[in-house]
Amino acid sequence: MWVARKVVFQRHLFFILLLAGMAAALHAARADTDPLPSWNEGAAKQNVIDFVVRVTKDGGADFVPQAQRVAVFDNDGTLWAEQPVYFQLAFAMDTIKSLAHLHPEWSTKQPFKAVIEGDHKALAESGDDGLQTILATTHVGMSTDTFGDLVDAWMLSAEHPRFKRPYNTLVYQPMLELLSYLRVNGFKTFIVSGGGVEFMRRFAEETYGIPPEQVVGSSGVVKYEIDNDGKPSLVKEAKVEFVDDGPGKPVGINRFIGRRPIAAFGNSDGDLQMLQWTCSAPGARFCLYVHHTDADREWAYDRNSRIGKLDKGLDEAAAKGWTVVDMKQDWKSVFPPDK
Amino acid sequence: MWVARKVVFQRHLFFILLLAGMAAALHAARADTDPLPSWNEGAAKQNVIDFVVRVTKDGGADFVPQAQRVAVFDNDGTLWAEQPVYFQLAFAMDTIKSLAHLHPEWSTKQPFKAVIEGDHKALAESGDDGLQTILATTHVGMSTDTFGDLVDAWMLSAEHPRFKRPYNTLVYQPMLELLSYLRVNGFKTFIVSGGGVEFMRRFAEETYGIPPEQVVGSSGVVKYEIDNDGKPSLVKEAKVEFVDDGPGKPVGINRFIGRRPIAAFGNSDGDLQMLQWTCSAPGARFCLYVHHTDADREWAYDRNSRIGKLDKGLDEAAAKGWTVVDMKQDWKSVFPPDK
Repeated sequence: MWVARKVVFQRHLFFILLLAGMAAALHAARADTDPLPSWNEGAAKQNVIDFVVRVTKDGGADFVPQAQRVAVFDNDGTLWAEQPVYFQLAFAMDTIKSLAHLHPEWSTKQPFKAVIEGDHKALAESGDDGLQTILATTHVGMSTDTFGDLVDAWMLSAEHPRFKRPYNTLVYQPMLELLSYLRVNGFKTFIVSGGGVEFMRRFAEETYGIPPEQVVGSSGVVKYEIDNDGKPSLVKEAKVEFVDDGPGKPVGINRFIGRRPIAAFGNSDGDLQMLQWTCSAPGARFCLYVHHTDADREWAYDRNSRIGKLDKGLDEAAAKGWTVVDMKQDWKSVFPPDK
Repeated sequence: MWVARKVVFQRHLFFILLLAGMAAALHAARADTDPLPSWNEGAAKQNVIDFVVRVTKDGGADFVPQAQRVAVFDNDGTLWAEQPVYFQLAFAMDTIKSLAHLHPEWSTKQPFKAVIEGDHKALAESGDDGLQTILATTHVGMSTDTFGDLVDAWMLSAEHPRFKRPYNTLVYQPMLELLSYLRVNGFKTFIVSGGGVEFMRRFAEETYGIPPEQVVGSSGVVKYEIDNDGKPSLVKEAKVEFVDDGPGKPVGINRFIGRRPIAAFGNSDGDLQMLQWTCSAPGARFCLYVHHTDADREWAYDRNSRIGKLDKGLDEAAAKGWTVVDMKQDWKSVFPPDK
């Protein structure tokens, strides 16, 4: 009802509902033929469709066998939003708050006090050490199962500060359609993200239709332990194992997927090497950047942003002819309708 | 023709061909109903089938949704043979020989001299350092693409010393049938092996029907590099990154697959933790050890073997009621017929 609240006028309610009904019917009819109904007509949409047609046309010069149709997607800023802070950091801070009643000592101890009181100034002053403490408290020293339960609980209860919706509803409707369009055309879709792999795997299947084994991300060291009753568990340790960002993305692709993608989708300089790796190989290739240009419906940021900085990538996309989505221009809607 | 050469008698050629035709027809008819034709009737075969029926029976107490039907297989000694040396070591030594003409200095330098001359005594004397040198020379300091080409070339040309067949034909026919049977029943099949992930991925798809992204293995550090022409490559460095053996197997499963398997197949103590991790969770689970008991058709080894030692695992399988395949007893044939 989040969109509807803005457009409902009492006086013309009947006519508006009538129009809405007609629009919905039209939309349903067109969806049969248009695989990307939330994309406006234009170069970005056309490039996507042209590429898919080329690589799937049996006997065509650019045909790619189904097993090799690997498409990789960044997550933060490409499949879901990443402002005002990465959602995984929101998870960490919300989880500190939800655990505070078990830790009375936090009420006088930084950075916990700042998180609990929403004191952004004190939080910023705690710096990288403070951030590390917040992440360590919420991400390590527990079994993978316990961590998964924390993520699930947060996703069910937390609300985004601006949109007042669960975080896993702040995904880009046009990208959901794109994922589905690629899969219908025989692509295997993977997430390749700097985010924590165990965090993303808790919602990627339900949210994006991407199963855990197709999620590549950053990870900490995990240790196999057996307790006194002979019950094994995997315990998350306070040691970084792999950072799946920048040059780490092609490395992660090689390690987890073991073949070079033919299509890659990102939104920041952290995705640049993944796009280079994908589009520098011979044969039909597709690289796309989502450019955040819509401060009204989402956010507008690029070259000078602290989160999701897109600077070198924008230049390289222009030089190499990669597709750049202008979110404001190219997307009819940004998020799925609120339920 | 490798089997046929042994059974063809000129005098009764006609009758033998007739019988062969009848046998083939019978085999084809039975294959429609028997998913595991190379398995003799017995507990091992029955346990496999019972498990698959239980977890796939819609509405049954042990039903498992298709997305959660994850089955993991060790490779060396479970899907293909591992004697007289791990096949990846044979690859390394054969590759040294094939590269020797480019390295005249090797003819006087250990361990290369020993490998080239097939001098097992000198090779053994070169110890772990010698082994490291052999592996480093054939596995690192090159791009992932170059390494892949080396593996492909070896697989096409090399012959196993005992069976005089290509290594990728020394796979277990009963296990190929098992892989296929599980997949037909909605399982996703993964390799989880101590072997090198980039080595296995070169043949796993063709040999086992397991795509690269479903192969988990040991790995070295790989680095993303861009040359002066702007062409990126991934270069294999001389640093171990991950050993997917013993307690590393559940860790590798967690990292790469992200969900707990419901079925696990191994043959050595290096697979024990993978089987523990799989079968200690609630719900229907299946764990199986292949026990090498057939010196005539393959090899017989277990508790005291240097390669594929199966000692603790054999005890734990008995204690926990896991299925143990007696290769001699339970398998009608071991390898696929030679072509």
